[in-house]
Amino acid sequence: MSEDIRKILDGVQRGSVSVDDALLQLKTKPFEDIGYAKVDMHRKLRQGVAEVIYGAGKTPEQIMGIIDVMKKNGQKTILITRLSAESAERVREKHPMEYYAEARCGVIGEIPKADGLGKIVVATGGTSDVPVAEEAAVTAMVLGNEVVRLYDVGVAGLHRTLAHLEDIMNANVIIAIAGMEGALASVIGGLADCPVIAVPTSVGYGASFGGLSALLSMLNSCASGVSVVNIDNGFGAGYLASMINHPKNVEK
Amino acid sequence: MSEDIRKILDGVQRGSVSVDDALLQLKTKPFEDIGYAKVDMHRKLRQGVAEVIYGAGKTPEQIMGIIDVMKKNGQKTILITRLSAESAERVREKHPMEYYAEARCGVIGEIPKADGLGKIVVATGGTSDVPVAEEAAVTAMVLGNEVVRLYDVGVAGLHRTLAHLEDIMNANVIIAIAGMEGALASVIGGLADCPVIAVPTSVGYGASFGGLSALLSMLNSCASGVSVVNIDNGFGAGYLASMINHPKNVEK
Amino acid sequence: MSEDIRKILDGVQRGSVSVDDALLQLKTKPFEDIGYAKVDMHRKLRQGVAEVIYGAGKTPEQIMGIIDVMKKNGQKTILITRLSAESAERVREKHPMEYYAEARCGVIGEIPKADGLGKIVVATGGTSDVPVAEEAAVTAMVLGNEVVRLYDVGVAGLHRTLAHLEDIMNANVIIAIAGMEGALASVIGGLADCPVIAVPTSVGYGASFGGLSALLSMLNSCASGVSVVNIDNGFGAGYLASMINHPKNVEK
Amino acid sequence: MSEDIRKILDGVQRGSVSVDDALLQLKTKPFEDIGYAKVDMHRKLRQGVAEVIYGAGKTPEQIMGIIDVMKKNGQKTILITRLSAESAERVREKHPMEYYAEARCGVIGEIPKADGLGKIVVATGGTSDVPVAEEAAVTAMVLGNEVVRLYDVGVAGLHRTLAHLEDIMNANVIIAIAGMEGALASVIGGLADCPVIAVPTSVGYGASFGGLSALLSMLNSCASGVSVVNIDNGFGAGYLASMINHPKNVEK
Amino acid sequence: MSEDIRKILDGVQRGSVSVDDALLQLKTKPFEDIGYAKVDMHRKLRQGVAEVIYGAGKTPEQIMGIIDVMKKNGQKTILITRLSAESAERVREKHPMEYYAEARCGVIGEIPKADGLGKIVVATGGTSDVPVAEEAAVTAMVLGNEVVRLYDVGVAGLHRTLAHLEDIMNANVIIAIAGMEGALASVIGGLADCPVIAVPTSVGYGASFGGLSALLSMLNSCASGVSVVNIDNGFGAGYLASMINHPKNVEK
Amino acid sequence: MSEDIRKILDGVQRGSVSVDDALLQLKTKPFEDIGYAKVDMHRKLRQGVAEVIYGAGKTPEQIMGIIDVMKKNGQKTILITRLSAESAERVREKHPMEYYAEARCGVIGEIPKADGLGKIVVATGGTSDVPVAEEAAVTAMVLGNEVVRLYDVGVAGLHRTLAHLEDIMNANVIIAIAGMEGALASVIGGLADCPVIAVPTSVGYGASFGGLSALLSMLNSCASGVSVVNIDNGFGAGYLASMINHPKNVEK
Amino acid sequence: MSEDIRKILDGVQRGSVSVDDALLQLKTKPFEDIGYAKVDMHRKLRQGVAEVIYGAGKTPEQIMGIIDVMKKNGQKTILITRLSAESAERVREKHPMEYYAEARCGVIGEIPKADGLGKIVVATGGTSDVPVAEEAAVTAMVLGNEVVRLYDVGVAGLHRTLAHLEDIMNANVIIAIAGMEGALASVIGGLADCPVIAVPTSVGYGASFGGLSALLSMLNSCASGVSVVNIDNGFGAGYLASMINHPKNVEK
Amino acid sequence: MSEDIRKILDGVQRGSVSVDDALLQLKTKPFEDIGYAKVDMHRKLRQGVAEVIYGAGKTPEQIMGIIDVMKKNGQKTILITRLSAESAERVREKHPMEYYAEARCGVIGEIPKADGLGKIVVATGGTSDVPVAEEAAVTAMVLGNEVVRLYDVGVAGLHRTLAHLEDIMNANVIIAIAGMEGALASVIGGLADCPVIAVPTSVGYGASFGGLSALLSMLNSCASGVSVVNIDNGFGAGYLASMINHPKNVEK
Repeated sequence: MSEDIRKILDGVQRGSVSVDDALLQLKTKPFEDIGYAKVDMHRKLRQGVAEVIYGAGKTPEQIMGIIDVMKKNGQKTILITRLSAESAERVREKHPMEYYAEARCGVIGEIPKADGLGKIVVATGGTSDVPVAEEAAVTAMVLGNEVVRLYDVGVAGLHRTLAHLEDIMNANVIIAIAGMEGALASVIGGLADCPVIAVPTSVGYGASFGGLSALLSMLNSCASGVSVVNIDNGFGAGYLASMINHPKNVEK
Repeated sequence: MSEDIRKILDGVQRGSVSVDDALLQLKTKPFEDIGYAKVDMHRKLRQGVAEVIYGAGKTPEQIMGIIDVMKKNGQKTILITRLSAESAERVREKHPMEYYAEARCGVIGEIPKADGLGKIVVATGGTSDVPVAEEAAVTAMVLGNEVVRLYDVGVAGLHRTLAHLEDIMNANVIIAIAGMEGALASVIGGLADCPVIAVPTSVGYGASFGGLSALLSMLNSCASGVSVVNIDNGFGAGYLASMINHPKNVEK
Repeated sequence: MSEDIRKILDGVQRGSVSVDDALLQLKTKPFEDIGYAKVDMHRKLRQGVAEVIYGAGKTPEQIMGIIDVMKKNGQKTILITRLSAESAERVREKHPMEYYAEARCGVIGEIPKADGLGKIVVATGGTSDVPVAEEAAVTAMVLGNEVVRLYDVGVAGLHRTLAHLEDIMNANVIIAIAGMEGALASVIGGLADCPVIAVPTSVGYGASFGGLSALLSMLNSCASGVSVVNIDNGFGAGYLASMINHPKNVEK
Repeated sequence: MSEDIRKILDGVQRGSVSVDDALLQLKTKPFEDIGYAKVDMHRKLRQGVAEVIYGAGKTPEQIMGIIDVMKKNGQKTILITRLSAESAERVREKHPMEYYAEARCGVIGEIPKADGLGKIVVATGGTSDVPVAEEAAVTAMVLGNEVVRLYDVGVAGLHRTLAHLEDIMNANVIIAIAGMEGALASVIGGLADCPVIAVPTSVGYGASFGGLSALLSMLNSCASGVSVVNIDNGFGAGYLASMINHPKNVEK
Repeated sequence: MSEDIRKILDGVQRGSVSVDDALLQLKTKPFEDIGYAKVDMHRKLRQGVAEVIYGAGKTPEQIMGIIDVMKKNGQKTILITRLSAESAERVREKHPMEYYAEARCGVIGEIPKADGLGKIVVATGGTSDVPVAEEAAVTAMVLGNEVVRLYDVGVAGLHRTLAHLEDIMNANVIIAIAGMEGALASVIGGLADCPVIAVPTSVGYGASFGGLSALLSMLNSCASGVSVVNIDNGFGAGYLASMINHPKNVEK
Repeated sequence: MSEDIRKILDGVQRGSVSVDDALLQLKTKPFEDIGYAKVDMHRKLRQGVAEVIYGAGKTPEQIMGIIDVMKKNGQKTILITRLSAESAERVREKHPMEYYAEARCGVIGEIPKADGLGKIVVATGGTSDVPVAEEAAVTAMVLGNEVVRLYDVGVAGLHRTLAHLEDIMNANVIIAIAGMEGALASVIGGLADCPVIAVPTSVGYGASFGGLSALLSMLNSCASGVSVVNIDNGFGAGYLASMINHPKNVEK
Repeated sequence: MSEDIRKILDGVQRGSVSVDDALLQLKTKPFEDIGYAKVDMHRKLRQGVAEVIYGAGKTPEQIMGIIDVMKKNGQKTILITRLSAESAERVREKHPMEYYAEARCGVIGEIPKADGLGKIVVATGGTSDVPVAEEAAVTAMVLGNEVVRLYDVGVAGLHRTLAHLEDIMNANVIIAIAGMEGALASVIGGLADCPVIAVPTSVGYGASFGGLSALLSMLNSCASGVSVVNIDNGFGAGYLASMINHPKNVEK
Repeated sequence: MSEDIRKILDGVQRGSVSVDDALLQLKTKPFEDIGYAKVDMHRKLRQGVAEVIYGAGKTPEQIMGIIDVMKKNGQKTILITRLSAESAERVREKHPMEYYAEARCGVIGEIPKADGLGKIVVATGGTSDVPVAEEAAVTAMVLGNEVVRLYDVGVAGLHRTLAHLEDIMNANVIIAIAGMEGALASVIGGLADCPVIAVPTSVGYGASFGGLSALLSMLNSCASGVSVVNIDNGFGAGYLASMINHPKNVEK
């Protein structure tokens, strides 16, 4: 943004931009207001990613409206998260879209070729954590990453975890997803030599308190290199994993 | 106690016990009141264990008073838990006593020969959990058990846990003690084929919230055969482990 | 598992197993992957119990698929917990199964003859705790235990608790199940001379906070020999009780 | 207060009280302002009790100032709660006062003769709860009640509770004081046929969370006739017990 | 119960009761077991009240079964709380019953003439608290009390509270029911000179956290003479109020 | 109210009002009791605002009954909050009313001309916070304020916040509404030089715990001039903003 | 800030400011960096108040360093909050300063003449809340407000609250400060017709949980016009009250 | 570790390693047991970092013992965290060590040349967060990273944050450290295009609840690319940042 300010100021100095226009540009340029949402047009430039629409709490009409603006602005690939099957059907009437039912994600446009530094491993403690894992996996794929899925490798059956030691050792980033006691993050964190993003899930009952147990467990992980995102936040984990897998200063 | 009632009633029927005496016995017999505490004289018979004095919040004088009553009633071995070094010194002036500093336990009388079914493994996630572990270990020893200590085998260095697989597989009861994320209980619970008593500790900082994180984690363990006692309750774990290791109906 | 490693290594030394095969076996042998779940084939050997399927969150089709694999591997008795009546009906179309409606458990195959050391008492504070108690009782029965049910013996009517003193005194393990204030565990813990597994239930309203009140109460029990499992975790209590009732080193 | 308004209005109507004076009286009469506290002179009339000074957070000087005003207004008996031994010594230099060290209460003037309907039983689960119990007991005594103390009768040793069945059955009000799991309130509530005031204490460690465990347990008591006051609030329990023991409409 | 024991012991001494019978009586007499519930036949004698059935979680059939046993044992008046309109209709087909829809209570038999010491005031902060208040009021009426209802007198409109000052001053017991911030208990507690039973309700939203806010507020009331029951526990408050209004040692 | 008392007392002194009438007036005048609610007729005088009916938990019939009383007493503008679309339809059959669907508010009578000191800015972090914002906006408008809406200006896209710097700098009061991490209040609080009323919303999932996260965040705001109302309490914020925008001692 | 940007842009257009200088000014101008703190020199202009130093966690040396910078920049009046008596003494050796011990605030320079619209009432529930109240009062005075103190007017003695009705009715802003159950805010909120800023305090014990009880109570206040600041945040309340008492668009 | 297994198996196949030796190696090789701690010698190979000693709860003697073993095994650079000044002095008597007082870290050996992909920015909201920030900064430096410190740039003074826009935009990883409301993470997360590691601190009072407020705020950040570590966990953040800044598959 620093550069943007400089450019506008340069224009003002050269006289090609009036003061009022400059003021206006500084304030209003980066997004388009379509009433129910401010569609953010600068985000891709700023953060280097495909556009994402958070579908929860939006009507199919609102989602389609945002897609329209994005396409009009030249966006190729669009990811819609937390998209119900019903809404997906509505959206598909107007826009061709791949719908990933378990991940509850829709993808418009091509999934790009994987161009990250290495592989992203998505591991879950149990079968019930898979929807969150799929949200993470689809997000990472849409953002140009190769994904390895290791599902149902919870630590109560340690041999199942260890059977995938090679994948764990070779990963560039690992997303460890678990409900209940959330121990998966610590065990994988102790085995791996790459960043581990822990995602607590709301899977469980009783004293799991909607994911609080796994969340606290993961925050207290005694393994180094582990950080945590919100409960059930598969998207956030996939997005961050892709960022780590695409560092800025690397020539490819 | 059912048998006690029957005996007293038999006495009443035979005329050897008056009604009022019977009523009195039913109510007052099992303990001796020494003002600041009701010393429980029937507990050993009832629960088959050496006497235990919970030292926290008691003055050395009160502790010595209770010891006097216990000895007078023929108690051989007495365990005093949560006993500070200062109080221990005071008590030792009057009663010969072995003081286990790390466990903060004093033992009066002989530690009995181990006569349980098998071994009790006491494992900790880290070095800071050792005081709780020692309280458990001393308790189990005083109650007649062989104890195997596995300290600092936390899951973030899984090879350290696995290095003791044989001890874990051979144990009759395991006490798994950990603060922070408390994952040790799940990993051991998944490896062992015996009951695992999980003890959360208050070791940690920040989101460990005084042991709450480990407590919730252990309660949500997806490994079967795991149960939990109060935070830092080494004594309770040792006591329960001994009970499991000395089942009622086994001839020796 | 230590023995398994040794056997494979012996094979490698003798030349009967190649290094790559050994590596593979070490990693992949103990379970069969059927896509949506890793069916654990070694668990029975390792922990000495009939197979258990946790039914919550699984479709009838998934459950039947797991049953197929288990049967193919020679499993005789299978317990399915948290199984809804609707799912049970579907499963029964393909596999003969006894359905325990109150426990919400299905049992495939014979319930084995009780061969534990003694009796397991399952006690509840109130009538509403019975479903959790039945889950515990059916689990214990499937694992080869004689079960004594003491329902609705809550401490607010102490005579009801005391009326069963003989059962409590004779038990080898007691499962104390209660919601609300959870005092049952302490009272039974004070009377019994065997391990007490406390199960808090989510029965209650207001300040019971979904079982938190009973959970905290049981964790703080001043009776020795009491440990706690997760809220509503009848299966876990039944499983642990069976483990305690079938110690390793006892000849029968 | 309704009668007070009527009297003042009568005065206004008769002309003996001016409107401005009436307004003033309605607003300012019932207390005396000594700067750091508004000493409430009407409370005794309004609520029928001796004056009480809550000592916590007040300097000895402030306490003595309040005593002066109270004495000047004819107050005979004054109870000072949460009074440290040091402050007590200071106060005693000026005012003769009985100091109850364990209760941390001072009493100025005579303790009145017990004139309630019956006895107030003060029971504790353990020895560590005694300071709270003594605060309750001294309060009740100062307010004219006969108090029966039953200390260390916790439910983990049920025979100790039952040994005092007669006292429990004969009480007019019972104050049940316990930390840890707080089960005492339920057990006594189930045995007694009079109101039970439950006082959770901060005694305990780990998952007792400073009295929260006992508090929740007591609020969820399944025994009828039980109500709860704040953690460690011995004074509040003693005050309420006295109120119940001195009902308004009873001739003596 | 002490007297019961004595009578049985007298019988044993006189030879009119055999030891085995005595043992049996001591254990089994006070209730009748009908499978799904232990109907408590001694409770009325012991606590002096009409029988109460807690309807929540019971089928109409179970409720009717309990009613049958109670009637067979001579019970005249039966209160059923937490009874849905649908269940009430079913029960009424077999037993004549008055149904109080707002209180969700059914009453079988006559409501007795009020015979307490004085009046019980039931006050609520708002209109939404009325169902809890009606449960309290109906309970108190069934137990023989005159009830004065003061609804919607919350402290944010203090004149509405003060308009009922006379009722508040004349009450023998007050039940103060409020959700949200629960300040009603403190204000009434400061005005009244009788015991105040505070009932927090789950009325509210956001930071009321299901009644937690009102609960904590009431527990911390700085007014003396206030105690608290569980959130929404109208029955408990009505029952306790009646107990206070019917002290043991008063001749009428 | 002080003046009211004086007037009534004046009447008593002059003899135009009897003592009993005065007493009655002091107590009963300010509201009208229509059974299910006490309609507060003095509130407008006392607090200078149009009447408000809190619609949640009230039937359309009850709402219409209250409207009738209010109109009979001369009330011109009535705001009904938390009014469902269904209830609105029913009310509209009898009373002409504007229904604001997103705000879930109905307005009877004219919205008054804005006569406050300046503008009230209503800002939200996201699109999902808009219903709460509309409740605040409609409330402020009904109470005579000019409202500027800044929706979806959350801090994760700081340029969107800064684009409205001029509105923020010119506001007289700002209502900052956000769920999730609630950072909007701090950022706006740091930019603005007027009071900021923060409204946490229940928008979010996982560790937002129903608005708790935003609530705590806003309470801890390091920006001066920020205060907080209950989660989702749009009405409260609008009402308070209007109060601040209409100070008492300002001539217009 | 919008105007600042415009001015700099004007300079750039006129050629009097280079692009690089403009960029620099936009970024670095508003504060002075003295190593351990960024002293904010533009704040007074931006928010119209005297400078404030938050003293907690700062050494006397750091505080004096900040004072030096402020004075150098022409600041006349400086308020230092959370200043211990020891630090105050140190500061006073170098800078003349008035120290308000109970408020734990130091004031350098003159307290300005009160020039707000009206009076700010600072009310407390009890005596222990006074330090928080004094922090609020001194803050408000330093910012140019007339303050009326009403201390120890808690609602459990309602006559004490009502005795100050006139002050409450005449206030322009009220700061209601209370610990324990925090009911003061609701009662004052119901009586007053001006904004009420509620300050929960950490005064209390047991279930007050360090101010949580009062905080929740105040957030749930059913009185309109009440908002809440952080526990013990007297400064924040005084600052906000002054802001409300000095609205922007009022000529004086 | 997979490769390690293969190597050992190869040795077994070639006959150069006996089966028993292989078994032993698989289990015990990777660490050295010095009684009070298992010093982990394989960690550097496995995770590519200098050795770290967590100093909290260790005596200077224990720390020195661990240093001895590490040096003996050829470790060059050793970082000791949570090291008090007193312990540091003791350690320095034996081992030359640089002590960073504010970070409470000791460094033995050379700090390596920065060889990561880019810069790590360490930003704090306030001055009180600096100790946590220094722990993160020293950790990152010891692990070979260039660190840029941006302290006291909290969002309530947004211009201070924006003044460092260029540093924020150029960073490869950002560590955002804040207590109170923790909004810094969201604002920086919205501005930056690199991973942001959020560290909540326990700085604050009242409703900050020891860092809980900042923790929840950060977990709920609506900015993508943000993850969270434990409260006050500067080391964990520095370690993870270094890992991200040193990806595996990058040639340098």
